[in-house]
Amino acid sequence: MCATDNAPAANAAPEKPSNVGVEVGHTGEQTNPYGANPADFLSNVSKFQLIESTLREGEQFASAFFDTETKIEIAKALDDFGVDYIELTSPAASEQSRSDCEAICKLGLKAKILTHIRCHMDDARLAVSTGVDGVDVVIGTSQFLRQYSHGKDMNYIAQSAVEVIEFVKSHGIEIRFSSEDSFRSDLVDLLNIYRTVDKIGVNRVGIADTVGCANPRQVYELVRTLKSVVSCDIECHFHNDTGCAIANAYTALEAGANLIDVSVLGIGERNGITSLGGLMARMIAADRDYVLSKYKLHKLRDLENLVADAVQVNIPFNNPITGFCAFTHKAGIHAKAILANPSTYEILNPADFGLTRYIHFANRLTGWNAIKSRVDQLNLHLTDAQCKDVTAKIKKLGDVRSLNIDDVDSIIREFHADVTSTPTVAATEGPAVEDEPAAKKAKTEE
Amino acid sequence: MCATDNAPAANAAPEKPSNVGVEVGHTGEQTNPYGANPADFLSNVSKFQLIESTLREGEQFASAFFDTETKIEIAKALDDFGVDYIELTSPAASEQSRSDCEAICKLGLKAKILTHIRCHMDDARLAVSTGVDGVDVVIGTSQFLRQYSHGKDMNYIAQSAVEVIEFVKSHGIEIRFSSEDSFRSDLVDLLNIYRTVDKIGVNRVGIADTVGCANPRQVYELVRTLKSVVSCDIECHFHNDTGCAIANAYTALEAGANLIDVSVLGIGERNGITSLGGLMARMIAADRDYVLSKYKLHKLRDLENLVADAVQVNIPFNNPITGFCAFTHKAGIHAKAILANPSTYEILNPADFGLTRYIHFANRLTGWNAIKSRVDQLNLHLTDAQCKDVTAKIKKLGDVRSLNIDDVDSIIREFHADVTSTPTVAATEGPAVEDEPAAKKAKTEE
Ligand SMILES: [Co+2]
Ligand SMILES: [Co+2]
Repeated sequence: MCATDNAPAANAAPEKPSNVGVEVGHTGEQTNPYGANPADFLSNVSKFQLIESTLREGEQFASAFFDTETKIEIAKALDDFGVDYIELTSPAASEQSRSDCEAICKLGLKAKILTHIRCHMDDARLAVSTGVDGVDVVIGTSQFLRQYSHGKDMNYIAQSAVEVIEFVKSHGIEIRFSSEDSFRSDLVDLLNIYRTVDKIGVNRVGIADTVGCANPRQVYELVRTLKSVVSCDIECHFHNDTGCAIANAYTALEAGANLIDVSVLGIGERNGITSLGGLMARMIAADRDYVLSKYKLHKLRDLENLVADAVQVNIPFNNPITGFCAFTHKAGIHAKAILANPSTYEILNPADFGLTRYIHFANRLTGWNAIKSRVDQLNLHLTDAQCKDVTAKIKKLGDVRSLNIDDVDSIIREFHADVTSTPTVAATEGPAVEDEPAAKKAKTEE
Repeated sequence: MCATDNAPAANAAPEKPSNVGVEVGHTGEQTNPYGANPADFLSNVSKFQLIESTLREGEQFASAFFDTETKIEIAKALDDFGVDYIELTSPAASEQSRSDCEAICKLGLKAKILTHIRCHMDDARLAVSTGVDGVDVVIGTSQFLRQYSHGKDMNYIAQSAVEVIEFVKSHGIEIRFSSEDSFRSDLVDLLNIYRTVDKIGVNRVGIADTVGCANPRQVYELVRTLKSVVSCDIECHFHNDTGCAIANAYTALEAGANLIDVSVLGIGERNGITSLGGLMARMIAADRDYVLSKYKLHKLRDLENLVADAVQVNIPFNNPITGFCAFTHKAGIHAKAILANPSTYEILNPADFGLTRYIHFANRLTGWNAIKSRVDQLNLHLTDAQCKDVTAKIKKLGDVRSLNIDDVDSIIREFHADVTSTPTVAATEGPAVEDEPAAKKAKTEE
């Protein structure tokens, strides 16, 4: 009775798709085991906002060189997706940055436009002249926590900050004040400066894990402590060097942070920050209704493709939600159980993201129908005849050298680009399923 | 005085490479802000063990089809890296799985060999006959927590478990008992079954986030609670569907878990589990000495390349440690500060992983010296003349279609494979730096 390979399909009670991840508790009320912790009175897991920084942090990614047209296309796509704020590179960075900032402000997007500047009056004047809805000011650790440690020059810092903050506020736009490298900073210095700027009346203060090494419980403690010191909102910025950027963002919200900095695919300095898609996966598991009410998740893949093309990277095979294997189940082990009752092994519903569940698309191609399934999964539209053509191309290259999933995707995309001048047809509906040999018996999963 | 783009190089005190991430506290003793939390008396952050499951969980990855030779090559590489346990697919899965399991047991590796079976006497008999050092038994949620919920058939479950556990123990090898989908399970049922098997005398009990939706504080609470109920070791298994697998593993160790399941590149069902490399990044930030004393980190890249080739995926651009941008800094913004004092913006030291810091290798190729740097970064060895040849090849293909980093890597690897019959030369030492235009002024980072 302990077999795990075929029992779930037979034993699990049928659940409605809308109940994915939601179970009925003993009292009869619905409880989500991955929802907000009822003990967290300050939690903002169910009312967070996003500061989307692909056009600021993302511009610092190794291969990011966005021209004006691309910036505008990305800004529009982000706005359409539903992000609350779009953060842009400082207008003081270059004349191009300044004019691009102005151009994006003039688009009339629903999202508020921010720019990210140094704590300089020159930068502040330039920022407010662009028409942004708010200014994010940052002061680096090396400035006030190393050079000016232990309060030596806190007066000087406070003075600069006051001048910039008052100036920005006098223009009726939002102002945020953030430290840099917050987790390597002296706690007392940090709280002192935050309390000072809170009293002046900033809209929010920011915590930044600039080196990407904070861990979730450390984040929880710092945000809770800060929450007891300031009355303004708290924004958090997490780099992903040690793989915790999504978890840290979630835990910060649990502790009472209000806003999370994200970028598409997480692009940014080094291996980047909390990714928009990864955070969406995390948050939909916690509060599906809130996430679906605010964000157009079915546009996530297109948004990621847009940015991936612009910075010339491939979507990682293991990317949350849109990686080729995120909703792929290997034929045999769980496949039948998944088809019978997806929530058995999968509490994220691919349909929420406009995607289909996928059973084993891989290197052993079984023909054009497998490629057709992949085409659909990529949100591209090709006729059956076109799928047969691209399959022939793939097989031809496969004879020359071994192919991986990225190769297949590249060929499909290239082919699709070639045929987009011809009218497209509607994609077929339903899950993409390859015929596979019967399940290997006795494989176990946990 | 608030500029962040050039000040760090001038202001930051020089630090020895061995002090990366370590700061001197006020009392004069060294404290690591990312180390074990001094309030965690049960923390195993500084004495964890790894159960490496590339050959079990990883075999369930969509495109994994390991033949015997590949399995042996991977097992040897894992052993050489220093993992504590290697977990294999159940010998009951197929005759091939059984004979491969036997073959790996006969290699005489330092790592202990485990296999992962259902709670069946048939499977248990087969497992002990292969010569493994231990058996991991799993019982699925659907069996004991859905069908048999609220203690209805706990006697039956306990009876099967007792029989299997006693049998395995009678052969003098290790035994682990794990639940499946632990975070969607009834807590009382869960603790009941764990206490029962602990009393019989298992070596360890396992918690598994099979659907990949647990969050760190939830993990902390469950592990702490379990720790108060059982006296044996605790093993944790985290899927990465919502991007928290590394953070959950770290937090489980903080709560007193002893062992973490990992796989190379995190490969496994759907988008996989805690990755070996990601966890190494997380743990080296917490306790560099412990990690360096146990694991050969400079073999990480080769190990990842071996597995990536076997399952035909590319290393994700943003992979911790080995992704192309993990130690890449975009010229201009931080580059000079990084060269002057790496710990300013980077507390992971690439040299710990046998890698070099890299300043802006990207799509705008500046010539063969950029390619030479990439070759070195990939741990491949080519002469300058060979680098010029492969650069010509890359530029030729670049005229036909646009190239991304994966394309460049593929061409380099192919070229390298072609020339490996000729004698190799030693790689040049030192950081790889491209000449780049001067830093754009006024870009801000946090
Ligand atoms: Co698993
Ligand atoms: Co940043």
